[in-house]
Amino acid sequence: MAHPTEMLAETVDQALRQRARRVVPGGMTGHLNAAALPVGYPQFFQRGDGCRLWDVDGREVIDFMCAWGPNLLGYRHPEVEAAAQAQAALGDCLNGPTPRFVELAETLVDTIAHADWVLFQKNGTDATTVALMVARAATGRRKVLAAQGSYHGAAPWCTPVPAGTTPEDRAHLIRFRYNDVASLEAAAAEAGPDLAAVLLAPIRHDLGIDQELPSPAFAQAARALCDRAGAALVLDEVRTGLRLNMPGSWEPLGIRPDLSAWSKAIANGHALAAVTGTDALRDAAGRIFTTGSFWAGGVAMAAGLATLAVARRDGLVVHLERIGSLFRQGLAEQAVALGIGIRQSGPVQMPLVLFDDDPAWEKGMVFCAEALRHGAYLHPKHNMFLSLAHTEADIAQALRATEAGLQAVRQRFGAG
Amino acid sequence: MAHPTEMLAETVDQALRQRARRVVPGGMTGHLNAAALPVGYPQFFQRGDGCRLWDVDGREVIDFMCAWGPNLLGYRHPEVEAAAQAQAALGDCLNGPTPRFVELAETLVDTIAHADWVLFQKNGTDATTVALMVARAATGRRKVLAAQGSYHGAAPWCTPVPAGTTPEDRAHLIRFRYNDVASLEAAAAEAGPDLAAVLLAPIRHDLGIDQELPSPAFAQAARALCDRAGAALVLDEVRTGLRLNMPGSWEPLGIRPDLSAWSKAIANGHALAAVTGTDALRDAAGRIFTTGSFWAGGVAMAAGLATLAVARRDGLVVHLERIGSLFRQGLAEQAVALGIGIRQSGPVQMPLVLFDDDPAWEKGMVFCAEALRHGAYLHPKHNMFLSLAHTEADIAQALRATEAGLQAVRQRFGAG
Repeated sequence: MAHPTEMLAETVDQALRQRARRVVPGGMTGHLNAAALPVGYPQFFQRGDGCRLWDVDGREVIDFMCAWGPNLLGYRHPEVEAAAQAQAALGDCLNGPTPRFVELAETLVDTIAHADWVLFQKNGTDATTVALMVARAATGRRKVLAAQGSYHGAAPWCTPVPAGTTPEDRAHLIRFRYNDVASLEAAAAEAGPDLAAVLLAPIRHDLGIDQELPSPAFAQAARALCDRAGAALVLDEVRTGLRLNMPGSWEPLGIRPDLSAWSKAIANGHALAAVTGTDALRDAAGRIFTTGSFWAGGVAMAAGLATLAVARRDGLVVHLERIGSLFRQGLAEQAVALGIGIRQSGPVQMPLVLFDDDPAWEKGMVFCAEALRHGAYLHPKHNMFLSLAHTEADIAQALRATEAGLQAVRQRFGAG
Repeated sequence: MAHPTEMLAETVDQALRQRARRVVPGGMTGHLNAAALPVGYPQFFQRGDGCRLWDVDGREVIDFMCAWGPNLLGYRHPEVEAAAQAQAALGDCLNGPTPRFVELAETLVDTIAHADWVLFQKNGTDATTVALMVARAATGRRKVLAAQGSYHGAAPWCTPVPAGTTPEDRAHLIRFRYNDVASLEAAAAEAGPDLAAVLLAPIRHDLGIDQELPSPAFAQAARALCDRAGAALVLDEVRTGLRLNMPGSWEPLGIRPDLSAWSKAIANGHALAAVTGTDALRDAAGRIFTTGSFWAGGVAMAAGLATLAVARRDGLVVHLERIGSLFRQGLAEQAVALGIGIRQSGPVQMPLVLFDDDPAWEKGMVFCAEALRHGAYLHPKHNMFLSLAHTEADIAQALRATEAGLQAVRQRFGAG
């Protein structure tokens, strides 16, 4: 006999959630947990194609989360998938790497301005962790400065939730305020001669607050501080990588890191991460021991090669800027017309829409729930992502959904 | 103009190594680095099929490393790859998991005797790390006991090389001797009321020494100690999982862990890891925050479902035991006939061949180098692996290669 609650399932998504609750703690964990999302958001997905997703109940949406970043060129991009399949027909994890390992390392070194070498991993957290290990091995020091509220992964040293971690896991992490030179300098003073690295996201993209570009003065101060202290400047490009500027998100600022951590989009959704570094840190990078059973797998590397080639050939960043500007401008006009105060911040490639006077994101939840009903999958408090597959027609269609979303906000909360 | 050393490359492998040295620290890092392997071992591979590998120079070998564990059913197993491709045609990483997530969690709970729930990750190191986080969240304690020399991953808390780590990374790790109850009890006494977990490999498979099965008394003592202390018994099944006994490597001993860490073979080479646990730890597992961009990807989970189905249908463990016994017996007879002292230890599914009076593994290196020249890829000091794809004919062919290897040892070092 079915479990009583099972009888209540009216959708495939509900039925899967009920099954999941029996065999997975809480039914789902981590950033993909739909429990914190607006009413009506699905937990489970059937398929993806380009910029579109279908949930397990067959609802089609234009997607603005891009799998939380990995989808850079479009779901199941034909050239990326063809490259992955061609490699899969040869082999993936073998007793050593395939030639794709060398080819991708060479391509990353050619693509990324500061990169003289590459180490590969699987998770973004692997990449940030390995970058700090390289910095510590190079300097023989322990302290790392990181901004308050910045997400750098979910290992014990960096997960935003302390459950299951020990105080010692983050004994050498000193926090400062992003874009605040005095705060950064104070943290460096606290580290003193034990400063190994400054770890920074290229932009501030903390959950639920406006995104911030780094001020040039702040970026310069971080670089100068590391030079002065003999510490490594580490950019966490896991979320931003390739989308803002392919040679590196801080290249337009003229500031180069010593190490960068990459993941998410570099193989268009295939599991891959990388640390890139300068020659000065090459020896240290060769002395640490980190590895994983699947880190040299050829399929994700073939996908990465195709991703970089397509991104370059098809003018990825220019496309994302154009499409992102259309979306931002359209939303801004709708908000003005309806008299609703919204804030859009950060690069247009990574949209974020927050509402004025909305400290608990209640307006955002209503906005997103209604937009979803009209076919656009948005996020009420996390930065979103665009892909090469989003067309002007997709943006126009999504803007009809956001208009419905804004009208719902106005109906529920009034103008303002 | 080509770099001078490039002109020396006589093989594709050498040419790739030279290119790799420019863009990867040391040319290769981690466990797949061929620098420590015998003369003639390739670094780069072109393809795999069943139990066979082809290096980039087209040399075919019968493989006894199975990609250091992930290859359980044979490289490019047709049913596993068909399942992976069918899922890839729908989508891999989306905004949430696919139905495969629930199906695989249910299948693992059905397969693994102690498992009431599952959390998924990508790396074996993720799984051991998450298991300890669950134990710490559940107990509110910090200390973990682990055996001297046991490999549990390559994060700062466990990597065998200290470069790039801090003393605080392993502040709460207390070591004991595997299979030594008094040593385990002493470590527990040192932890006192702060004991969160005992972390154990199901067999002792440390690099370069004979493998050891756990004594029943030791396994019982570990279980009793955890029960008494209210700590979690964690089995690291990353290397052993599914090969020795599908419901769990300690099931034949009648000892069940509270948590187990799985990876390598569970999706036949597709990147996947998992932690399984008991109901008593379900709440704690839901309270920790760990996640990764690719952890819910559907393709590896589809591969995992197919892997478990094939392993069960085709009698994986029985096959591995039969094939492994043939290999062990054949080698033993060859060694006796040639008057060479070898030791074979551990389960036959995970062969290890060490030579008497060979503290620096020099005989092992000669043995493996010659066996490779005759078409068998063995390892001189790390446990090896067998797959469902190894046939009696493959073992017979490999034994001709091991005979040549043993003769080379005798020629170089004499009998004894």
